[in-house]
Amino acid sequence: MANQRRDANFYAIIPAGGAGSRLWPLSRADSPKFLHDLTGSGHSLLAETWNRLEPIAGNNIVVVCGNAHATAVARELPGLAPDNVVLEPSPKDSTAAIALAAAILVRRNPDAIVGSFAADHVIDDERRFVSAVNEAIATAEAGFIVTIGIRPTSASTAFGYIESGDGLDVASAPHAHRVVRFVEKPDAATAAEYVEGDTHLWNAGMFIAKASVLLDELRANRPDVAEPIEAIADAWDSPSRQSVLDALWATIPKVAIDYSIAEPAAEHGRLAVIPGDFRWDDVGDFAALARLHTSGRANVLATLGENTRVLNEGSSGVVVSQTKRLISLIGVKDIVVVDTPDALLVTTAAHAQRVKNIVEQIRQSGDDTVL
Amino acid sequence: MANQRRDANFYAIIPAGGAGSRLWPLSRADSPKFLHDLTGSGHSLLAETWNRLEPIAGNNIVVVCGNAHATAVARELPGLAPDNVVLEPSPKDSTAAIALAAAILVRRNPDAIVGSFAADHVIDDERRFVSAVNEAIATAEAGFIVTIGIRPTSASTAFGYIESGDGLDVASAPHAHRVVRFVEKPDAATAAEYVEGDTHLWNAGMFIAKASVLLDELRANRPDVAEPIEAIADAWDSPSRQSVLDALWATIPKVAIDYSIAEPAAEHGRLAVIPGDFRWDDVGDFAALARLHTSGRANVLATLGENTRVLNEGSSGVVVSQTKRLISLIGVKDIVVVDTPDALLVTTAAHAQRVKNIVEQIRQSGDDTVL
Repeated sequence: MANQRRDANFYAIIPAGGAGSRLWPLSRADSPKFLHDLTGSGHSLLAETWNRLEPIAGNNIVVVCGNAHATAVARELPGLAPDNVVLEPSPKDSTAAIALAAAILVRRNPDAIVGSFAADHVIDDERRFVSAVNEAIATAEAGFIVTIGIRPTSASTAFGYIESGDGLDVASAPHAHRVVRFVEKPDAATAAEYVEGDTHLWNAGMFIAKASVLLDELRANRPDVAEPIEAIADAWDSPSRQSVLDALWATIPKVAIDYSIAEPAAEHGRLAVIPGDFRWDDVGDFAALARLHTSGRANVLATLGENTRVLNEGSSGVVVSQTKRLISLIGVKDIVVVDTPDALLVTTAAHAQRVKNIVEQIRQSGDDTVL
Repeated sequence: MANQRRDANFYAIIPAGGAGSRLWPLSRADSPKFLHDLTGSGHSLLAETWNRLEPIAGNNIVVVCGNAHATAVARELPGLAPDNVVLEPSPKDSTAAIALAAAILVRRNPDAIVGSFAADHVIDDERRFVSAVNEAIATAEAGFIVTIGIRPTSASTAFGYIESGDGLDVASAPHAHRVVRFVEKPDAATAAEYVEGDTHLWNAGMFIAKASVLLDELRANRPDVAEPIEAIADAWDSPSRQSVLDALWATIPKVAIDYSIAEPAAEHGRLAVIPGDFRWDDVGDFAALARLHTSGRANVLATLGENTRVLNEGSSGVVVSQTKRLISLIGVKDIVVVDTPDALLVTTAAHAQRVKNIVEQIRQSGDDTVL
């Protein structure tokens, strides 16, 4: 089957960073979102991401994470080769993470094609996902930087959108289109228009390109990021890795790959998009988590957690528990209850975005032990 | 001052029973409502009840409670004489508790006047309370069974009402009136009429009478209760207490004193009422607890508990915590959160009465450890 061929030059990059502070107190500094099972599958989001990529990339999967999470990542991913772990001395946003992995890989294989996929997103149709990635790889082989845009299933104002343009004539990628532009999170009316039309897709932050093309684009737009990254990559597979890292990592500017690579590439006509017809969510807050588990149905109460015990009288929303306490809910609608050994959160789906304010309050109070 | 005279024949009875299941998971079988500090005073409701009665009754205070609570009661009430503790082998409702105490006391002092006061109510003006009790004692001396009815401050549908009639001509009791009848919990419209008028008072379950009068009334209405009670009282201050208790206690019918004594006495014109112009609440559920601590103001979040740590963004209602966990609330209105080591309750004031359904569910599930 054409969709299931394996390209030996393809490498998946999983940047496993991000605090997930809107999922506090579930997501913590020492146990971030990607280490949690948010789908009820019995696997962490990171392990699910690996499992989704393995049919396409085999063991050619590189994980970029912080030193603090190295042990947990290794435990979650028994197939991860030690050479394929890139430990960041400190968080430097997505450009540094992805570009460093790409720069290391292109030195190991000059024909490397890389694809970056967040460690903490949820995708529910692996066949369609694989099909889209394979079209993206074919399009990347033709020299494009490629993103996979998700066909919107609702007028979400929580995601950015990608406007697709003319079709591209790429072998093995019948759905490839040129990207016209990126659109920031729209208002509700605009989002509704996008869903009606056929040209706007959700930006899911998946980027696929030849490593050399990706790094050329970065150098053209942000030489201040590209130069230290290239220097570190030169030293990576040598005894001087640590000393060069120590000297240069702190100097790297923090910038999202959307701004350093994707948007400039779109402006210059070098960005392509493959539409993804699978269910996707970044599970950015507890409202998204509730939606994921209730399929948007009102009057459903979803419960997550291994030992969760809930008694419910007429409540809806989501309960996440890390304790064995008996949790009773009576007549509370669209409620969000997150029960952990040292912190309890009670809010509603409508206020889910405000969780980060609470996290900020705690940070300012200096009570870091619960963060 | 006439209001502060002490009647040496007066004895206060505090029936300390009642599961308080609408206050679960705060109130438990082994730690019922009366053992909790629900006012933030630093004292349990039982200790506050004692402190309120001591200026009137001195050490003439008898507490009726279950065997399981004897130790806790003694700890709460250092002034309680061992002879003044009546331990019930099993709960038999208010008639048995109060009548047994009265029957024991009348054998110790044939002129005993008794007054029964719940162990778990809240009263906030002790001077007016003492004044009302002293008028009630004077009216009891004249041969009446007397209740103290609370002047309603809102059109509550949660309380029963007492309709007062003609004034009585009793020395030292200028506010004594005859009771026309008791009214069960009314609907909202009827309750509103009662508050407008001047003749309806809340039934707070306080009854004052000569012990002999009270027991005569019981014998006339419910000889099936009076007979075993009298027999147990005959044996109480003798070596045969336990054997008679063992033989007879289980046979006593469960009946509330309202039905066995107060309502029949009202029908026969033998019940008087003294209006109480103090703030009173039976704190029957978490809505009442929230009201007590927010003084009914919207947008106030009350917190109870020694170590309670709450972060709040735009929430109102009440948080009760027995843990040291950090509790964060965002945008939840009129919320009730009760956080205990083994059980968590989340509901709203509007649904507070439904807590007893949850307790019933737990009972039926057989998971008694959390009750």
